[in-house]
Amino acid sequence: MASTAIAFSHPVRIYWEDTDAGGIVYYANYLKFFERARTEWLRALGVAQEPMRKEQGLIFVVTDLDMRYLHAARLDDVLTITVAVSVAARATVVLAQAALRGGLPVADSRITLACVEAASLRPRRLPRTLIDALASLHTSP
Amino acid sequence: MASTAIAFSHPVRIYWEDTDAGGIVYYANYLKFFERARTEWLRALGVAQEPMRKEQGLIFVVTDLDMRYLHAARLDDVLTITVAVSVAARATVVLAQAALRGGLPVADSRITLACVEAASLRPRRLPRTLIDALASLHTSP
Amino acid sequence: MASTAIAFSHPVRIYWEDTDAGGIVYYANYLKFFERARTEWLRALGVAQEPMRKEQGLIFVVTDLDMRYLHAARLDDVLTITVAVSVAARATVVLAQAALRGGLPVADSRITLACVEAASLRPRRLPRTLIDALASLHTSP
Amino acid sequence: MASTAIAFSHPVRIYWEDTDAGGIVYYANYLKFFERARTEWLRALGVAQEPMRKEQGLIFVVTDLDMRYLHAARLDDVLTITVAVSVAARATVVLAQAALRGGLPVADSRITLACVEAASLRPRRLPRTLIDALASLHTSP
Repeated sequence: MASTAIAFSHPVRIYWEDTDAGGIVYYANYLKFFERARTEWLRALGVAQEPMRKEQGLIFVVTDLDMRYLHAARLDDVLTITVAVSVAARATVVLAQAALRGGLPVADSRITLACVEAASLRPRRLPRTLIDALASLHTSP
Repeated sequence: MASTAIAFSHPVRIYWEDTDAGGIVYYANYLKFFERARTEWLRALGVAQEPMRKEQGLIFVVTDLDMRYLHAARLDDVLTITVAVSVAARATVVLAQAALRGGLPVADSRITLACVEAASLRPRRLPRTLIDALASLHTSP
Repeated sequence: MASTAIAFSHPVRIYWEDTDAGGIVYYANYLKFFERARTEWLRALGVAQEPMRKEQGLIFVVTDLDMRYLHAARLDDVLTITVAVSVAARATVVLAQAALRGGLPVADSRITLACVEAASLRPRRLPRTLIDALASLHTSP
Repeated sequence: MASTAIAFSHPVRIYWEDTDAGGIVYYANYLKFFERARTEWLRALGVAQEPMRKEQGLIFVVTDLDMRYLHAARLDDVLTITVAVSVAARATVVLAQAALRGGLPVADSRITLACVEAASLRPRRLPRTLIDALASLHTSP
């Protein structure tokens, strides 16, 4: 039930691959940008997903996604993608993520991540490293 | 304020391009499947988006997206993507879309589409053809 | 050393996801179309890639690709993607693939596929089903 | 007819979006990485593609692509994408591009870019800025 904690941010440059014939970024591609930023956020907290998958058979999956598209981004734009923890539970984390351009929001979202066993997709406890890192975020003064 | 009308459906086969190293369909790719089905639904209602863009300078953009991922889809799966109108207004349509496998939901969503001028992204009235088609959906016995 | 055998073809519709801000199909996406057609070609020959991966640990990888882009494809176009066998060897198949619109080539390619063990990426003999299917293609009158 | 000139390089991190169910980078995605590096190379030479498209109606298109896949890349890998000019002519440039990991090639390619008018796709002279930049590459001692 914790309020949004310290934000993490990651820059994303817009390339041709990200745009569509409307001249703007294709709506599905923001989900790629958000996932890149989550990966870098996890890495910064000490969670490496490739060993997690290969050695422990665990992956994160998105179970819920609430997205608002406020403005359009275009070729050559640089977006700042933010990650903030909204709620952390035993097997899930709810994140608030946004794409900003020049400090103004282009898109924002609430995303629920669940930790699951890759083979069965059954819920599993979040990795210890992540639980500890999230705990320390909330206990800082 | 109309309730969900007659559903349209479109099949999508899962290929390698749609999967990720977790062995399942990458979460952003459902948005591509949903957009393919919307395109076919619009085509079935008489709305061709390429002439709409080139001749009238109008495109549809997604402004709001609420998505639940219920199960995972995998390579070789065939999904049925459905489109149902939830609410239609002057410049926007709210759709209920789902991805089904063997009749059971894999993902579902509520998606708001707005009609905009491609150059300025300013809201514009929905194309006449679409308004008429939506009206006839609701007035059928 | 066989010459190009009977062609297989698979239709692909162009959606927004396939285009870029230049108003045409993004160049990398033809590789997705070619792979979709190869998958359907393999399926038609009795080779199902998901069981092949899960039960035998074998996948196909592209090792060589020679591509010419002759014309641009656009939103709403329907392309016919063809697959023809150029050369088949113990662990590799060379295919000639093209994307046609109204019978005229938009892009064509020569693609070398190798059968490998997914874990080690070491070359493995092509699946028996495929070898037999390819043999029968060449021995038909 | 100049030989390969000074190489430019650009780092690319591998995310989930880049992989497929085989656990490796999907073959089409290298073309995205190569295009990102070309964009940064053009930017470094003073060529901004979005103004070029919007103000002059000019875009670059790939007309020819010769690609070898030598090794597989995986989640979390960092690749270095290189760009070197092989041949520059009036309306086309031939580039040698490679993806390296730890200094070793994962994939390499020869790519022909043509400058065209976006509307008609007719060949146009390369932008002056690029011609001058390419000339200075070859005349440096």
